[in-house]
Amino acid sequence: MVNAGAMSGSGNLMDFLDEPFPDVGTYEDFHTIDWLREKSRDTDRHRKITSKSKESIWEFIKSLLDAWSGWVVMLLIGLLAGTLAGVIDLAVDWMTDLKEGVCLSAFWYSHEQCCWTSNETTFEDRDKCPLWQKWSELLVNQSEIKTILSGFIIRGYLGKWTLLIKTVTLVLVVSSGLSLGKEGPLVHVACCCGNFFSSLFSKYSKNEGKRREVLSAAAAAGVSVAFGAPIGGVLFSLEEVSYYFPLKTLWRSFFAALVAAFTLRSINPFGNSRLVLFYVEYHTPWYMAELFPFILLGVFGGLWGTLFIRCNIAWCRRRKTTRLGKYPVLEVIVVTAITAIIAYPNPYTRQSTSELISELFNDCGALESSQLCDYINDPNMTRPVDDIPDRPAGVGVYTAMWQLALALIFKIVVTIFTFGMKIPSGLFIPSMAVGAIAGRMVGIGVEQLAYHHHDWIIFRNWCRPGADCVTPGLYAMVGAAACLGGVTRMTVSLVVIMFELTGGLEYIVPLMAAAVTSKWVADAFGKEGIYEAHIHLNGYPFLDVKDEFTHRTLATDVMRPRRGEPPLSVLTQDSMTVEDVETLIKETDYNGFPVVVSRDSERLIGFAQRRELILAIKNARQRQEGIVSNSIMYFTEEPPELPANSPHPLKLRRILNLSPFTVTDHTPMETVVDIFRKLGLRQCLVTRSGRLLGIITKKDVLRHMAQMANQDPESIMFN
Amino acid sequence: MVNAGAMSGSGNLMDFLDEPFPDVGTYEDFHTIDWLREKSRDTDRHRKITSKSKESIWEFIKSLLDAWSGWVVMLLIGLLAGTLAGVIDLAVDWMTDLKEGVCLSAFWYSHEQCCWTSNETTFEDRDKCPLWQKWSELLVNQSEIKTILSGFIIRGYLGKWTLLIKTVTLVLVVSSGLSLGKEGPLVHVACCCGNFFSSLFSKYSKNEGKRREVLSAAAAAGVSVAFGAPIGGVLFSLEEVSYYFPLKTLWRSFFAALVAAFTLRSINPFGNSRLVLFYVEYHTPWYMAELFPFILLGVFGGLWGTLFIRCNIAWCRRRKTTRLGKYPVLEVIVVTAITAIIAYPNPYTRQSTSELISELFNDCGALESSQLCDYINDPNMTRPVDDIPDRPAGVGVYTAMWQLALALIFKIVVTIFTFGMKIPSGLFIPSMAVGAIAGRMVGIGVEQLAYHHHDWIIFRNWCRPGADCVTPGLYAMVGAAACLGGVTRMTVSLVVIMFELTGGLEYIVPLMAAAVTSKWVADAFGKEGIYEAHIHLNGYPFLDVKDEFTHRTLATDVMRPRRGEPPLSVLTQDSMTVEDVETLIKETDYNGFPVVVSRDSERLIGFAQRRELILAIKNARQRQEGIVSNSIMYFTEEPPELPANSPHPLKLRRILNLSPFTVTDHTPMETVVDIFRKLGLRQCLVTRSGRLLGIITKKDVLRHMAQMANQDPESIMFN
Repeated sequence: MVNAGAMSGSGNLMDFLDEPFPDVGTYEDFHTIDWLREKSRDTDRHRKITSKSKESIWEFIKSLLDAWSGWVVMLLIGLLAGTLAGVIDLAVDWMTDLKEGVCLSAFWYSHEQCCWTSNETTFEDRDKCPLWQKWSELLVNQSEIKTILSGFIIRGYLGKWTLLIKTVTLVLVVSSGLSLGKEGPLVHVACCCGNFFSSLFSKYSKNEGKRREVLSAAAAAGVSVAFGAPIGGVLFSLEEVSYYFPLKTLWRSFFAALVAAFTLRSINPFGNSRLVLFYVEYHTPWYMAELFPFILLGVFGGLWGTLFIRCNIAWCRRRKTTRLGKYPVLEVIVVTAITAIIAYPNPYTRQSTSELISELFNDCGALESSQLCDYINDPNMTRPVDDIPDRPAGVGVYTAMWQLALALIFKIVVTIFTFGMKIPSGLFIPSMAVGAIAGRMVGIGVEQLAYHHHDWIIFRNWCRPGADCVTPGLYAMVGAAACLGGVTRMTVSLVVIMFELTGGLEYIVPLMAAAVTSKWVADAFGKEGIYEAHIHLNGYPFLDVKDEFTHRTLATDVMRPRRGEPPLSVLTQDSMTVEDVETLIKETDYNGFPVVVSRDSERLIGFAQRRELILAIKNARQRQEGIVSNSIMYFTEEPPELPANSPHPLKLRRILNLSPFTVTDHTPMETVVDIFRKLGLRQCLVTRSGRLLGIITKKDVLRHMAQMANQDPESIMFN
Repeated sequence: MVNAGAMSGSGNLMDFLDEPFPDVGTYEDFHTIDWLREKSRDTDRHRKITSKSKESIWEFIKSLLDAWSGWVVMLLIGLLAGTLAGVIDLAVDWMTDLKEGVCLSAFWYSHEQCCWTSNETTFEDRDKCPLWQKWSELLVNQSEIKTILSGFIIRGYLGKWTLLIKTVTLVLVVSSGLSLGKEGPLVHVACCCGNFFSSLFSKYSKNEGKRREVLSAAAAAGVSVAFGAPIGGVLFSLEEVSYYFPLKTLWRSFFAALVAAFTLRSINPFGNSRLVLFYVEYHTPWYMAELFPFILLGVFGGLWGTLFIRCNIAWCRRRKTTRLGKYPVLEVIVVTAITAIIAYPNPYTRQSTSELISELFNDCGALESSQLCDYINDPNMTRPVDDIPDRPAGVGVYTAMWQLALALIFKIVVTIFTFGMKIPSGLFIPSMAVGAIAGRMVGIGVEQLAYHHHDWIIFRNWCRPGADCVTPGLYAMVGAAACLGGVTRMTVSLVVIMFELTGGLEYIVPLMAAAVTSKWVADAFGKEGIYEAHIHLNGYPFLDVKDEFTHRTLATDVMRPRRGEPPLSVLTQDSMTVEDVETLIKETDYNGFPVVVSRDSERLIGFAQRRELILAIKNARQRQEGIVSNSIMYFTEEPPELPANSPHPLKLRRILNLSPFTVTDHTPMETVVDIFRKLGLRQCLVTRSGRLLGIITKKDVLRHMAQMANQDPESIMFN
């Protein structure tokens, strides 16, 4: 220490800042991360570990552990997400049955497990459900997850408390009978697990980019447990949720999704050893002529998607802007009460939505007791159970048709008002229910038409009397896919999830025809899916990979400062004092400042982050001697030549980003958008023949895109 | 015209070049495309069509057609690829049987279709097969397709003649009994279809970037018809083959893959209405303890992958560098003859490899006549056919074990020498065969062990006497997945293809365990899969998405000119004559030149492509008056001020790229590699505080990466 002090004092002080100081490289809340920077930080860390690993066996073991931590995190996520999903399923089951009664022998048994039915307990408990929802104050949907994955910081959104509250409230909400599904919240629960486990490994906790890899995989695990569809879950995460999805993540996501699915299966909450939520088995193939009703269902799905997105967004905007938003608990209570009262009389709205979908997907076997299978049997028939010909509909089917029509209207209306309330809510199940009801109705219609009019040209070729031509359950499934596609605009993942549910390639063509039609119809009315719409509504800075930017604007049209605005706030490399910089920081709220050679030449040498400047100055003032307000700050290798009596200069080269991203002012905005998207930039500097002209931030890009799409650019709110 | 002539002559001449001249925007053979440029060109085209579409109904219809052409191309690719695959399958069937005889009633019938067996015709025809292969002079594997998709121009590789020759030779080669599969060539055939159809639509034929979208989808269709696994095909294309894979392409690829698969199924070449190549149905679940042999098979697969890649690459290098390469036809004849002679005596090598795999995958039912199912039946047993307990092996099984061991050695050796010969060859089938043989042998071993030693601790828990515990067919499947994974390093797509083949999630865990183990074991010996290894061997400029670049070098270490080299060849914006530029072009072979304000200031204003410079000068000299060798070329908006008697200046701003990509000299190479990869750049300029320092091309990046990996940088050959 004494020796060091005896050496050139300024040299010692200069090197002081070369050591990292706390909080460097972190982000503030509601800010966007810089992907390139995160990536390069991870490479540094990796390089350090690799070079250290040759030093000792202990370091080598540590490097191995580091290399394996990704897989360990995935395993843990899969195990926990699967377990939680199982617990939630069991609890929902139990709570749903609690409406009917309680198992006297063991109160934690659900109705089914208890095998005990009580006719004395009434359904009055149902009305108490809303009160439980007091606990659930978290607005939740996949749009937040999607924004976080695109590189946005929302602290606490994926914390441990969120995980706990979420898990509890999800049980309450799903069992309350509201028109919502559990896949959205399960994705959130899985992401909380991912966040929790990644905080255990420094590789992930200290790098926001790496953390998002884990979260993408966790989202896949969430969908995997919601539907028992691991491949579909991974594709869903790839297509719909994730922003940054390297191939390594694909493989790990698949691993997490599989572990989660098999953990859930070994818990076996549905008691049937099935992995999938709706297991179906059909016995008849489909015929070419049936493509026509399938495509009609696709059109219906597209229209439903458009209607739902428009109405739901309008309602949510109303909630955001009027006094309604101030009473979230009251809103939940009112909606639940109305749902409960209207839903009760109709058997198809009274049962849980998953059960309803299951029943609608089901093919009518000979022994089926459901009202939907009340066909008039031919008493002379002695065919095997599986291969029942089309039969005329009985009274039950006709009653069911009316009830289904009412249920359809009810579900459509109530889902619009339910999604977006301040409770954990998923959208898949209600959307699928709407489609399944419509599909089953169309299916029964086609079936009866084919039975009564065998001689019509369209039926003559494929439907002889006594044959089993039409499977109404398949129509329900096609309808469900169409409606889900219309709302979410998923494509491949939708078909794959449906494929995993049915387990046969046989029915992929109908599903795909409906999904394609539905997407086209819905896209014709507006390109946004429900998640993007909610992201826009909330003003999150999300740069969608799917949006095409085709306008002719140039970087110069978007960059700040605009014409007439004051010049860009820049730092010079060796002529500003600490006080100058502190004033600049106080007077502006920019996230960073370009550093130029001098104000005259305007030649760019780097970029300094606001947060790091503040930290560096604070640190230097506290811990470094001789740093006063008059100290010159310099970003060059060597300190500038100063008069003899001037205070110690402050070296800040360490915090200078020497490779800021630049484009020329003539660069088409299309290319700029592409660069921001693919490289995950936070800002980009604009130059013309080497001179710094301005800066474009992600927010500027998003606002420009909003403006070009005739939207309000001020709707983009965060940095 | 006269009016225009009366106006400022130079203005008229200046604008002359603002019209496009032929061949601008194309690439030379064996060059890399610039993705950003292609993308921006497509946006221009799209903008033009959109604005025109408002002018008249005809233009509107044209714009609709343009928007739909992507789907039309996919449909056509699917139809043609499926049809070709069906035709190939039928022809192979017929040709394979031709070895045994010919159908007298209709010669185009295969053995099976003809239902006619001749004992008079001998197997002598087999030896004639090699002669047919004279037609097939095209070295083919997926590595070329992969390189083309990454943005490399190889003209004629995907042409119509290739399609025709390929289809014919594929039939000959597969039926010849050589140790190779048809999936590689089918991918090539599908890509030829894609190339053919995209040449019909100007949207695709004129834009190399858009064309690659179609080719990626076509590759998916190729895998889809090779295995009957459309989802696996799409994932394979995403994971293994493609470079640029936007989400829009994902959906279209899926469409093409499905159409191809269903076209193939409606042709029904295997006569069983099955979509998949190897349809299997197992009746027993797997047990936890079995994971141990599955993981062992994974280790075997990894070792096989390493061995195969090393030996095959060594042999191919030998072929490339020694005189051996001069006699491709002789080599094919010799290998085929040796294959035929050695393969004939052993029944497992005599039959076609697909049949062998089918037999090995198969579960032994009670009525199975195969030698592999020659178990000693308990005569007292009267169980249902499906649920046969483990039985002791009969003589046939022991014979089969010896024959399989010999077949394994034979397949391993012969595949190493066969893959890479100048014939269409796929690798999936031989790899799977190696794994399936090993797996079946392990499976039979475990089965007999479990039967004879019920009391061992490891068996006691899950295998009581008289139970059906071990399915040797499942071991064969796991082994096949492991070996395929070891060679290709596929992960998710491998599991999904296998999942589609079996149609049940039940067996995903064993498959995944084996695939993960195999990949880890193989990666421990070398990161390259067989396709990457062949790409390296051929020196194609392929920037792998999966390679991680973690070295600490900076852009300044990689850029040209190096220290001591002559300065960078640049153009100045308004002081060089046509002759100066022509000399520069003649003396150098660079693909383009940066344009700077002046040699002193070195401030960059743009980048001009060599090819376009040449074309522009040639055009101007031919068609524009007053352009002589002394004409000043200028890239500014306004012509420079010239003495009165100087010749007409030549305006070249039109060919100037005003938004060249720049990085600073301090940019880490890791970031530079990322930028090249994600944006698909061809070159990037290096600046320091606004001054042009040098240039980095894709080739420089690849050479640097090779150098860092201790490989020969001169192995990267093309631009």
